[in-house]
Amino acid sequence: MSSPVASDAVPAAGPVPGFHAVVPAGGAGTRLWPLSRAGHPKFLLDLTGSGRTLLQATVDRLAPLTGPGGVLVVTGARHAEAVAAQLPEVGAEDVLAEPSPRDSMAAIGLAAAVLVERHGEDVVLGSFAADHVISGGELFAQAVRDGVAGARAGYVVTIGIGATEPSTAFGYVRAGAPLGLDDAPAVRHVVGFTEKPDAETAAQYLATGEYSWNAGMFIVKATVLLDHLAAQLPTLHDGLRRIAAAWSGPDREAVLAEVWPGLTKIAIDHAIAEPVAAAGGVAVVPGAFGWDDIGDFASLAAMLPAGEQGGPTLGDEALVQRLSGAEDAFVAPAAGRVVSVLGVPDAVVVDTPDALLVTTRGHAQAVKQAVDGWRGRGREDLL
Amino acid sequence: MSSPVASDAVPAAGPVPGFHAVVPAGGAGTRLWPLSRAGHPKFLLDLTGSGRTLLQATVDRLAPLTGPGGVLVVTGARHAEAVAAQLPEVGAEDVLAEPSPRDSMAAIGLAAAVLVERHGEDVVLGSFAADHVISGGELFAQAVRDGVAGARAGYVVTIGIGATEPSTAFGYVRAGAPLGLDDAPAVRHVVGFTEKPDAETAAQYLATGEYSWNAGMFIVKATVLLDHLAAQLPTLHDGLRRIAAAWSGPDREAVLAEVWPGLTKIAIDHAIAEPVAAAGGVAVVPGAFGWDDIGDFASLAAMLPAGEQGGPTLGDEALVQRLSGAEDAFVAPAAGRVVSVLGVPDAVVVDTPDALLVTTRGHAQAVKQAVDGWRGRGREDLL
Repeated sequence: MSSPVASDAVPAAGPVPGFHAVVPAGGAGTRLWPLSRAGHPKFLLDLTGSGRTLLQATVDRLAPLTGPGGVLVVTGARHAEAVAAQLPEVGAEDVLAEPSPRDSMAAIGLAAAVLVERHGEDVVLGSFAADHVISGGELFAQAVRDGVAGARAGYVVTIGIGATEPSTAFGYVRAGAPLGLDDAPAVRHVVGFTEKPDAETAAQYLATGEYSWNAGMFIVKATVLLDHLAAQLPTLHDGLRRIAAAWSGPDREAVLAEVWPGLTKIAIDHAIAEPVAAAGGVAVVPGAFGWDDIGDFASLAAMLPAGEQGGPTLGDEALVQRLSGAEDAFVAPAAGRVVSVLGVPDAVVVDTPDALLVTTRGHAQAVKQAVDGWRGRGREDLL
Repeated sequence: MSSPVASDAVPAAGPVPGFHAVVPAGGAGTRLWPLSRAGHPKFLLDLTGSGRTLLQATVDRLAPLTGPGGVLVVTGARHAEAVAAQLPEVGAEDVLAEPSPRDSMAAIGLAAAVLVERHGEDVVLGSFAADHVISGGELFAQAVRDGVAGARAGYVVTIGIGATEPSTAFGYVRAGAPLGLDDAPAVRHVVGFTEKPDAETAAQYLATGEYSWNAGMFIVKATVLLDHLAAQLPTLHDGLRRIAAAWSGPDREAVLAEVWPGLTKIAIDHAIAEPVAAAGGVAVVPGAFGWDDIGDFASLAAMLPAGEQGGPTLGDEALVQRLSGAEDAFVAPAAGRVVSVLGVPDAVVVDTPDALLVTTRGHAQAVKQAVDGWRGRGREDLL
């Protein structure tokens, strides 16, 4: 009963022809200070104890879907060298260095324009943050394959993460009727996106069964993305096209210097996803894989396996001592020193060679205070 | 109306003729780990931020009362070098090194016997721990002068610390009738000593007005002490006499090697103070000075002045950041790294180059758990 395979159908295994992954690698992750620093951000860290950094794990996950040479990383100029060093399998020409941060629309739009220059108008790109943790790789791959099918049908496709709780930390995407794609029946229309809701609203969302978390993963034909951008923000579109045309030639630096500083700073959600969804051009594919954006130390602690002593350790368990009333302590002994915790329930202790943070999971969202505080005292070296 | 001064009266100012101070410098202070270590104990540390270690401050306090050459320190062999280095004003011959710990009776008894060998039978000695903090030096000096008067009258005199709260952490001394000394009317008979009481009993003690804290400070004629020792523990007495006789000669090491390991390990309280008190031979002089034995980090934190940010810092305030819910944190940034504390009320954070302790004031008495735990894991290097 198998149907004949159309020429542009998405194969059920192996690389997806014409599919390119774009990995925006930015954001300091100030809620993970002092592990994460401006000069050594979250995506460059191994936060899972797997031996691979979040960036490396992201590329590991995507490379089998794109095939060789199919991953493009967009990062800040100050991180380009570290990114290239962590990713020997990604060519130097596939690490795009932004002169300064211009938010996600410029980063992904630049990648789309460069991909069209290099690979033509049939490119489908998928954009995936460099600092998320995903488990259930087969389910992720299936979602991407479905997403590519939706993209080939002309949609901006987002992957909706199956919500495991009524979180107030994420925006939500609301699914409507199925697109009716033969090869990807799970793909549905998007009714709309929401901002982070309050707890009551989040619970209502979950009760409907229509809402999933918006993790900012987009799969779309590069030309479709650029056409939407041209319609919504033509100046930004034209600037990115000019830069992309010059990227591989002698004028790259001159054009970047002229155009980049004036580019509109806007997130792709506001620039494309929300207005295009309102016009019916966005689809969603459900993602049943495990997902975590490691937004703070509570999230990191929950993701790590409990150790023999109780709470999780990020690093060498032999350096950690959990005493009465601190059995569940999360400890990152990243300075090589021993750490003893006594009588602090829910403790979070992050020990690095030049800075120590002591807090609790309940205060994990407030860790940014520490970064702001040291900045206020002129200690830029600690940020 | 001044009376004629007797030849052996204690002068009201300046050195007290015949008075020698003995400073037993021992005890690791495991409740102050990781600041205090077996190899770097509490008495060698500056815990007040004064620039002087507890040992140095103890000698500073006593030297004006004894005059030059009047302070004898008894310490463990492993600390003798560090003690001598901290006390250039104390001659090498006045630092007595014990081959192994034999508790306070052996330490103070040895000092008494050595003092009699060197200075004759009129010596009055006062024994004061090396790791207590005292404020109100004039009141302390007055108590010592009164104590010497009591000692010259033949008593073992203890200084009773004015209790500021019904503490269950200390033993108490109960005062009886005045001795009736013309030159020291404050000195009273001791009815008895008590073990550490429960809270209710401690409150009853304070209500009577008869009880003060027993801080283990004794003032007594050296020969009186030795006579009591001969009566109570003749073998220990004879051993210490033999060692003292050989101390300044060529046989010291041989006699120490022969006698020291067999000496009875016993505290002076049990060996002398309690039995002699029962026989009416102990007196008490009230001490109205400020006193703290810095028994744990809660006690240390309470002793230090609050900083600009709230809680006290032992060290460089510029290294410490107290954020929401941790305004009262006690922090010892002894590793030179910055320390940020967030959302841990009553926090205690002690940061040293090889070990970090995170706890609260409420758990300060349990810090010994950390030492025991690391010992159990074979980390003797941390103790």
